Parts: sequence; C-alpha cells; structure tokens
Amino acid sequence: MDLNALAKAHPAHWSKATAIRALTLDAVAAANSGHSGMPMGMADVATVLFEKHLKFDASNPLWPDRDRFILSAGHGSMLIYSLLHLTGYEQFPLEEIKNFRQMGARTAGHPENFLADAIETTTGPLGQGIANSVGFAMAEELQRAQYGKKIVDHFTYVIAGDGCLMEGISHEAIALAGRHKLSKLIVMWDNNDITIDGPVSLSDKVDQVARFKAADWHVIEIDGHNPDEIDAALTEARKSDLPTMIACKTHIALGHAAQDTSKGHGALTDADQMAAAKAAYGWTTGPFEVPADVKSAWEEIGKHGADDRRNWEERFDAMSRSKREEFNRALAGDAPKKLSATIKAFKKQTSENAPELATRASSEKTLEVLNPLYTETVGGSADLTGSNNTKTADLGVFDVDNRGGRYVYWGIREHGMAAAMNGMALHGGVRPYGGTFMCFTDYARPAMRLAALMQVPTVFVMTHDSIGLGEDGPTHQPVEHLAISRATPNTYVFRPADTVETAEAWEIALSSKKTPSVLSLTRQGLPTVRLEHKNKNLTEQGAYVLADAEGKRQVILIATGSEVEIALKARDLLQAEGIGTRVVSMPCMELFAAQDEAYRRRVLPAGPVRVGVEAAVSQGWDRWLTGERGKWNKADFVGMDRFGASAPAEELFEKFGITPQNVADKAKALL
Amino acid sequence: MDLNALAKAHPAHWSKATAIRALTLDAVAAANSGHSGMPMGMADVATVLFEKHLKFDASNPLWPDRDRFILSAGHGSMLIYSLLHLTGYEQFPLEEIKNFRQMGARTAGHPENFLADAIETTTGPLGQGIANSVGFAMAEELQRAQYGKKIVDHFTYVIAGDGCLMEGISHEAIALAGRHKLSKLIVMWDNNDITIDGPVSLSDKVDQVARFKAADWHVIEIDGHNPDEIDAALTEARKSDLPTMIACKTHIALGHAAQDTSKGHGALTDADQMAAAKAAYGWTTGPFEVPADVKSAWEEIGKHGADDRRNWEERFDAMSRSKREEFNRALAGDAPKKLSATIKAFKKQTSENAPELATRASSEKTLEVLNPLYTETVGGSADLTGSNNTKTADLGVFDVDNRGGRYVYWGIREHGMAAAMNGMALHGGVRPYGGTFMCFTDYARPAMRLAALMQVPTVFVMTHDSIGLGEDGPTHQPVEHLAISRATPNTYVFRPADTVETAEAWEIALSSKKTPSVLSLTRQGLPTVRLEHKNKNLTEQGAYVLADAEGKRQVILIATGSEVEIALKARDLLQAEGIGTRVVSMPCMELFAAQDEAYRRRVLPAGPVRVGVEAAVSQGWDRWLTGERGKWNKADFVGMDRFGASAPAEELFEKFGITPQNVADKAKALL
Repeated sequence: MDLNALAKAHPAHWSKATAIRALTLDAVAAANSGHSGMPMGMADVATVLFEKHLKFDASNPLWPDRDRFILSAGHGSMLIYSLLHLTGYEQFPLEEIKNFRQMGARTAGHPENFLADAIETTTGPLGQGIANSVGFAMAEELQRAQYGKKIVDHFTYVIAGDGCLMEGISHEAIALAGRHKLSKLIVMWDNNDITIDGPVSLSDKVDQVARFKAADWHVIEIDGHNPDEIDAALTEARKSDLPTMIACKTHIALGHAAQDTSKGHGALTDADQMAAAKAAYGWTTGPFEVPADVKSAWEEIGKHGADDRRNWEERFDAMSRSKREEFNRALAGDAPKKLSATIKAFKKQTSENAPELATRASSEKTLEVLNPLYTETVGGSADLTGSNNTKTADLGVFDVDNRGGRYVYWGIREHGMAAAMNGMALHGGVRPYGGTFMCFTDYARPAMRLAALMQVPTVFVMTHDSIGLGEDGPTHQPVEHLAISRATPNTYVFRPADTVETAEAWEIALSSKKTPSVLSLTRQGLPTVRLEHKNKNLTEQGAYVLADAEGKRQVILIATGSEVEIALKARDLLQAEGIGTRVVSMPCMELFAAQDEAYRRRVLPAGPVRVGVEAAVSQGWDRWLTGERGKWNKADFVGMDRFGASAPAEELFEKFGITPQNVADKAKALL
Repeated sequence: MDLNALAKAHPAHWSKATAIRALTLDAVAAANSGHSGMPMGMADVATVLFEKHLKFDASNPLWPDRDRFILSAGHGSMLIYSLLHLTGYEQFPLEEIKNFRQMGARTAGHPENFLADAIETTTGPLGQGIANSVGFAMAEELQRAQYGKKIVDHFTYVIAGDGCLMEGISHEAIALAGRHKLSKLIVMWDNNDITIDGPVSLSDKVDQVARFKAADWHVIEIDGHNPDEIDAALTEARKSDLPTMIACKTHIALGHAAQDTSKGHGALTDADQMAAAKAAYGWTTGPFEVPADVKSAWEEIGKHGADDRRNWEERFDAMSRSKREEFNRALAGDAPKKLSATIKAFKKQTSENAPELATRASSEKTLEVLNPLYTETVGGSADLTGSNNTKTADLGVFDVDNRGGRYVYWGIREHGMAAAMNGMALHGGVRPYGGTFMCFTDYARPAMRLAALMQVPTVFVMTHDSIGLGEDGPTHQPVEHLAISRATPNTYVFRPADTVETAEAWEIALSSKKTPSVLSLTRQGLPTVRLEHKNKNLTEQGAYVLADAEGKRQVILIATGSEVEIALKARDLLQAEGIGTRVVSMPCMELFAAQDEAYRRRVLPAGPVRVGVEAAVSQGWDRWLTGERGKWNKADFVGMDRFGASAPAEELFEKFGITPQNVADKAKALL
C-alpha cells in the first residue's frame, strides 16, 4: 500500500484513522499482549462509520435510540477502545488506554459489556457478535413496531472477521437475518485474507459474497482503505431493504512490517518496527499522544449525535405517560406490577386443581397468564414449538410483515437462537425466552455461557430433560446437562417438580436482571406435589421441606423435578415401615446455596441419612449429600452414571433403578 | 403425487421402495413413536443408492473398503433399519424391526453405531452426520494415499435434511469439504420443504444450491422420486472432482394423508390412514410382511458387493505382510509396539532434565516422539496451531495435492473439527487429535459428547486451560470446562502437571479404543514435578502420591495441572511449620474413580484434613475432599467460584487466592 497516497488523498480522514492505529500499537506494546493488526486494518472503515454514519452521543452512551456498534471480531478490542477514547466517552480516558489488559481496567483483553456502558456486547468467542447482532436488529424492529419510528429507529453495525464467518454460528445468524429481511443490520467484513495459522486459503475458500447473497443479503464490495468507497457503501447499505454485508478488502496491520501476514494478527511490539510504521503514517507524536487537532476532530464526532439525542428526548417526552412508563420499565428490566399477584393467583388455583402435567405444559400454562402482562417478552423455539410449549395465544409471530410479533420461529438453530436472544436482552426493551431440548444445551452452550458472563437475563426453556423422554434414546437424553449448567457461574438452573414450582421459577426468571435462567422441564406428566398453597415463592429459597417426617426423622430425601414424585413415593414406603422421612424439593441449587447457613441447616439438618434423587449424573450433588464441607452425613445418590437408552420412559426408570423402591432401599441400607 | 404413475413407470423399483415405506409405517405404529415421514420421502433415493451405487456386502458389514452410508437426518432411522433388514444384514432380522425403539433392540430411536456394525455413526443431533462425513472422506483420502487405490477406494454417501443444513455445523462441514475438494463425498439433501414447526420458509429461505456452490461444491437438482434422475445424479456425482450435493425434491410422508405437512414429520400411527397409504402404494400384505419376491430382490442387492469384497481381499492379501499388519493394526486401533518403550525413555529423559515447560509445549514434545511411531495419527487445530502446539515436524499438511498429509488446518471451526475427527475415528485406520482453547470446548461440545456416546477415542487437545492464560480475559478463561468434561460419561479428562504426566496422558489417550480424551493443558510454564523416574504410568491410576508427608501426616493437598506446583509450595510452607503434608497429583479423576477402594484409600487415607487446588469451579471435587459418600474429612477447596478477569496471569492467581500461602492457610484453618 502506498500510505502517502492514502494520506494525501484524504488528509483529515487519514490523521483520524492513524490515531486509532497509533493508539493500538502503543497500548498493545505497553501490555505486551493483544492484537494489533485488526484495528490497524479496519481503522479506515471504523473512522468513516463513526464520522459519517453511526448515530451516537458520546456524552450519553445509553441513549436508547443510538445505533448499535458490535465488534464481533472482539480480539481487535483496541479498535473500539480507541474509538471510545477518541470520541470522548467519559469512561474511556487515556488512562484506560494505557492500562489496556491490566487488572481492573475497562479495556479488557476482549470487549466486556459489563465493564462499560458503550460496549454493547461481550465478544471474543468468534461468531457471537454477529449472532448477537441479529437479536439487536430484531429487538429494534419489535420495539419500533410498538413505539413507532419516531422513538425507535436505529441501525446495528457489525465488524466481523474471517473467524466470525467461518464459525458455524455465522450461518445460523446470516440465514435468520436474511429470512427476516433485517434491513437495519449492516455487517462490515474485514476481508484481510489472514487467520492465525496463515492465509485464509489454508482452511477456507468459501465465496463469501455468493454465500451472503444465497441467504438473501445485499452485498457490496469495497476497498476498505478508501474512505469514499466506505462512505458510499454505508450510504447504500442504509437504504437497502435487505441486511447488507460490506466486504471490505483490507490489509491487516496496515503499514507495519507484518502487514498482510499472520504475524500481523497478534501483538506487534517490536520498537523499531513500531517506529517505522508510525513514520510511514507520518505520525510524529510520542506514545499515547494524539495531536490536539486530531483529538478535537474526533471529539467533535463524539458530539455529532447530541442534537439527534435531544430531539429524540423531546419526541419521547411527547409520548403518553403510560407509553413512556412502559418503555422505561421494559428497558430497565423491571417486572410488570401485576406479576406477583398474578403468580400467586395462578399458584393458588393450581394447588387447588392439582393437575397432572408435564412441566413443559406447566410452563406453557404459566406463560399463558404471564405473557399478557408483558409487552416485552419474546418467545421462540428452535423448531420444537409444539414440544417446548413456548408459544402462547397472544404473542403473534415475528415476521417481515408483522414486526410486532412476539414469537420467533428460530429454525433448527439452537446456537443462533441463544446468541440472538442474548442480543435482544443486551439491546434492552425486550425479554427473550427460547426453547429446545435440554440435551441440545450442548449446541447453545457458547452463548449460554456468554449470557452468564454478560449478565443478561436470557431464559432458556429446556424441555425433555431426562431419560423420561423415552424412545428418542441417548442422543436426546440429557444426563450431564444439569451439571453443566450448574457448573456455570451466574446461572439459575431450575428443575421444577410441578406446575407450582414451574410458575415460581418463571417469576424469578422474568424478574431477573443480571442472571440467565435454564428451565429444565419434563416431557412426561407429573402430579402436582405442592398441594398446600403458599403466597411465598418457595423456589426463591432454592430448596424447601415439601413433606416432613412423621415420627423420628431418620431419612432426608432430596430430589428435583420429575424425581420429587419418586421421592414422595419412597417416603410413603419408608413411613409405612415406621421410618420417619423428610422430602426436600430442590428446584434451584444456586438459590439454595445463596441462603444463609441457618436456613440451609433447617432444611438439611445433620443427623438423618440422605439420599439424593435426580435422573442425571451425581456431579455437584455431594455437597448436599455427604454434606457441606466439614460436615458429614451418611448419604447415597440415585441417578444416572452412564448415557441412557432408547425405550419407553417407564422402562428406562426401572432399568436405571430410579424408582421409589430403590430410593427406599438405599436409605434403609444407610440406616 | 400420482403414485400410480410412479409405480407403473418403474415397477421393480417401486415395490422395493414401498417395502421401506411399509416397514416404516408398521414399525412406527408398533412403537407408537418415531418419525415416519422422512423414510417415506427418501425411500426412492435410498433404494437407487443401495441398488445401483453403494458398494457394500451385507454379509460383511465391516469390510474396510465398503462405501460409507451416513444418515445425517438420524430421526429417519427406520430408513436405515429397513435397508439393513431388507438387504439381509444378519444383525437386522425382522424381529429387530418389530422391536423398533424398544429396550435392548438394535433399532434404537436414532441410529447408534455401537449397537450394530453396519451403522457407521450415531446421528440424531442434527448436522453431526454431515460433519462426521467430512472426516470419513478425509480418512479415506489419507488411507488411500498410504495404501493406494487398490486397497482404499470408497465413497461416503450422506442423507441430510433441512435441519442438518440449518445447523451451523453444516457450514463448517461444507466449507471444509469444498476447501479440500473431497470429491468422494456425496450428500443427498432431502429437500422436502418441511420442518417440525411448519414449512421451511417459516424460518429459512436460504438458497441451498447457491450456498453449496459458494463453498465450491458440485450441485445437481433432481426429482427425488424419479429413479432415473436419482441414478443419473449419483453417476454424475461419482465422477465429479468436487464434493457433490444432490438436491432431491421430495414429498415427506409420500402417499400418506400427512404428505407435505409438518405432521408428516412425526409418528403416523392412525390405522385408517396407514391402510389408505398402503392401498395407494398397491401394497397388500399385512404388517411387517414383505412379499417374497421383493425381499429376495433386496437380498440380491445385499450380495452385489460380495465379488468386489472378495477381489479386494485378494488385493489386500497381495500386499506386503508389513503393510497388511500396519493396515490391520491401525484399523483395530492398536498402539504401535514401540509406544510403551518410547514413552518410558521419554519420561526418563524428562525427569532427568526437568524442563520448565507449559504443558502445551510438553504435549508437543511428546507428539514429536510419538507421531513418528504411528502412520495413523492425524493432528490439527482450529486455527491455533502455534498456540495448541499440535503440529510436529514429520506430519505434512493434508491438502488437495498432499492427501497423505497428517496435519489439518481446520480453520476457525471447533465444532466441525471435533465432528470430523469423530468421523475419522469412526471410519477407522486413522487416529485424530485436534486442538483449540479449553474454553472453546463449548463450541465443540455437541461432538465431544457424541465421541463419548459413540465410544471413539478422539483426542481433544485443549490448551490455555485456566486463568493462567492471562490477559485474554474471561471470554477465554475456562472455569467450568473441567467440570463439564468430567460430567460427561465415558470421557477421560487429563490435567497433567508436567511433561511426564503429559506423556503418560498421551500414552493412555493414544491407546484408548473406546473412550475419548480431553487433554487440559496450560499456556504458562510449569516446572517438572515428577523428578523421580518410574516406568509405570502413574497417570493410569488417576491420582498418586507425588510428595508424602514428612513426620505425622496431618494434611493432604490434592491438585491437578498447574496447581500441583502451588500445592508443592504450600507443602513447603506447611512442612516448615512442622505440619506433615502429603501432595496428591490427580491428573485424571475418572481413572482414579476406577481404581479399587484399597488404592483410593492408600492415596487418600481418612484422617488428615484435605485441601483441593484447581483453578476452576469446585463442582465434582467434594467426592475427593469431604470424602467419598459415607466417609468424612475436614476439607476445603481453593479455586474459582466466578468468571475470571483480564490481567497478567500471576496477578490473577493472586487476585483469586490460588497461591501457596492461601492453600497453606486453608489447611491450617482446618487443623
């Protein structure tokens, strides 16, 4: 590349873009760690985007109608940090840039949404950002349908790299965006022909332009270092009635000795090479120094959107008070006022009627009463709507001609669904839940982890949660997935035993602001076990005494979900022999662990022998059985220590010994 | 569809295809469960494939040079069961068809490779089969390069549905196959426009033909009910020098009242509708009855390949003895004779030299001595070759013009890599290992579970296995992934502490025949802790006493991987205060759990207080700390109870208290 020619052709642009490149080199060198090449390659694209297209106000990072900027290629984090610093975001003073990748800095190795207001999503695991962006764009459409174009009218811009486009999740995301004609989604592909292992062609020769077109995207190909072409492409993209992919031909690590090589992907810290690159840019200031005129030009850009924002605020204030309150409540993630009373009434009615229902059906019944309270819940399923019971009567279906529809047919795309739901939650103003089989937690797993890390309250409705699904066999029977979900920090894993507990779990999940929920629900029918109505949400305590011992308390049975019924029957067997037996229902281990020790001891007093019952692997149970560390109980576990099998469900419970008799026998053996 | 016209045009074909449809209807009805529509829709394609193209000998299902048939749309399992029964596979008598989806039957809900020889892979989780098939086709190419076309020359045929093509993993698989011009891979897409939720268009409008062409596939579009078109397409596909996708336009549940509807996807059990469908087919026999002439025509097809097979055996016998032995050894999954001695020598040298190495580098050093012993190891990485240390000098790179290359640049495709490795292992004759970051276990997870379920010894080389990776931050720092892997049945999770344990782990992993391995390896350098050489593979016992207490044994510290060093330093602190402290290294919990109780007690005797140390969540540790159930020890755990952070590694270990001092303090607090 002839950098001189670039600089001469667009001097004002060049100096601004160079500021990004120079800050990137300096920060990575100071940290002696990071990825220099991507920000250096995409600086031109990002500069034009921020200068001429992105609607934002650096003084007000959370303005609801801002355009969203998603750095899907999250390793290039210095690109976004540079932009946020240069445009004057208060949370990104120069000190943050200097502390890149250091303890406590907002400038973490990869962008983390929970560290700074202006970081819309956490990226780094490749492909997540582009899949989040589908959810962002859908949320915008949904909100626009509800509040009108005067209040909601913004774009979602994404920078994605080759890695994002190779990951399978990108296929799911691209197909969804094309299917739904998400015209306000604009992806800028950093087409630099380089991956870590070498040229892209080592592993990939996909014609990305043809691929996106096959998914019904508008595609524009440009020189990613030519500001005019970038500007024209973004202008064109904003007018398209399809989502747009702009293929930006770029040079990774532009101007550096490592340009166009896989070495350029990583940390470029050689002092001489840095100096040479800066010289080639015509950049003469010292490390971390941005010339005052360049900084002030960038700060002007950071103020461009202030008028827009003020005008928006006027329009917002002109809305009816009820509309404003509804908008703000949904955005804040607050539950509707009627939630608590509605749940209580539903629970009371349920305890009275004592229906026998699969908890997936309990979940549907709960949603039938909850969805009407909300304007922001958005349901969906990865092509298992009838099995996951996620669709309720009033939602409508999200589609090109029904943008207000609150049910999404996600297709056979568990991962894309999960990541897009995260995007919706991050966008704010909508509250997503979506279903698949519990076993396919595996497919959605990277996005489920990110929901927990990002502190968004996405709800994963995971039905068919054990061998109880029967004939579909071990490929569909989860045994380790409760443990997997419970191993993940900041995740509520609910395994309700009946309709009452299911309703309580939904109340918690839909009130949560920072913690995602996994609802583990049965395929098979279960009796109502909570026959005595309590206003209190007992699931909130994680575990509670469902049936206490009659006579001397010798045994405690602890169970979850479909195995609570088995524990109750085992209790009958034991009590019939005069063995006093308590049954503890434990719908949420995380919430029980969060109770104070006095409560935990009250539910699980030392002394009696304990048997845990769950049609899953025992990993994670020892704490509640043998006892919390330093305490001791004789204990055993009835569950699964292998994969399941294909057969009718009742035969499987027999085969694997998850029966009342076996539970009772194990308890007696301990006495 | 005018079934009469179809029947008249190709009467012999029609009766054979109808046998599949009728058996499917009968088996699903008997089970009252299953998926009727797909086998009914794809019966014509499958019939032509088996009759005219598939190279197989029903009397010899494991003939190494057979063509492979992969039913990626595994829910349509009655398609393959019908074919195996009709063509006369001994393992599939009519009784098996009648026992569809019942306890103990080979005819499980979804095809399970470990239940029958002729089932090449386990499918059901959508997209896995098509991704496995990439590995099958690569293994064929690799073996052909080694043994020549006379010995290895077969196709991989795949039937995939819309679900397979929507799943993200299909993108990874298709891109890989196109990149590597896997011309002997032929995918037949069941293009029936139906998913469970409704028409495909509800969720997807991707132009699949254009999509596959964009990935450099040959594509043919046909009427999937016209035997001439099917035959011509397969003939053309076999000649192509690209992988071929045949888009087969079909009618799901052909001839049934539910034809072309999403209801047709599931179990069609209505007696009247079944009778009507059979009448429309002109099928007049009773349930499970195949007319003798039709059955014998099918059985003839099952014998078509017998001559081919005998000729192949002659060619095989004509090979040199050493070539034959090598072929058979690799196929059987037996380790090379020199493996044990090589490992011992390597360990001895290592204990003497006591290098300080990251275990990812230890792994590379081990592979440098092991790969030359093998002809069948195939390494690779999902674009992290230099970080995973998976490439050794002698492997060569698998490519279009180097089919014998034993290293695969998988690209940024953890899931596709894992599933393709499973396919390689299932094909046999090659032994795959592949790397990514431990945190991206998440992306590979569905295929890692299937490796365990399918009982294949795929090796997952997972580096950067804790906060020890430092600045990349929590998106890249695993904390729950050891627990996730350990929760999965039939999986070895190795977390070696140094080069010696790493070599031992590799020995086990590369000797395993039915269990996949996860090698959890550090980014950061570790000292050699096994300074005294033992010939015995101590890792095989899962845990062992690395340093015993001096004086009275008061404390046992149990650690894995990078935390063994910390435990040893904590021991120094404790011993300095006169507190006798044993350090147990526990590189593989699964193998320790498999030891007899006497050994477990010897390593972990009751009495001393215990502290576990692992830079990960504690889930799964209580068993070894508080004690196995029914036994008790005062215990504590030093590890992670939250996501990590972005900062230099040493600072993170300090921040999260994973330090010798903290371990020693915890032990003392328990005393």
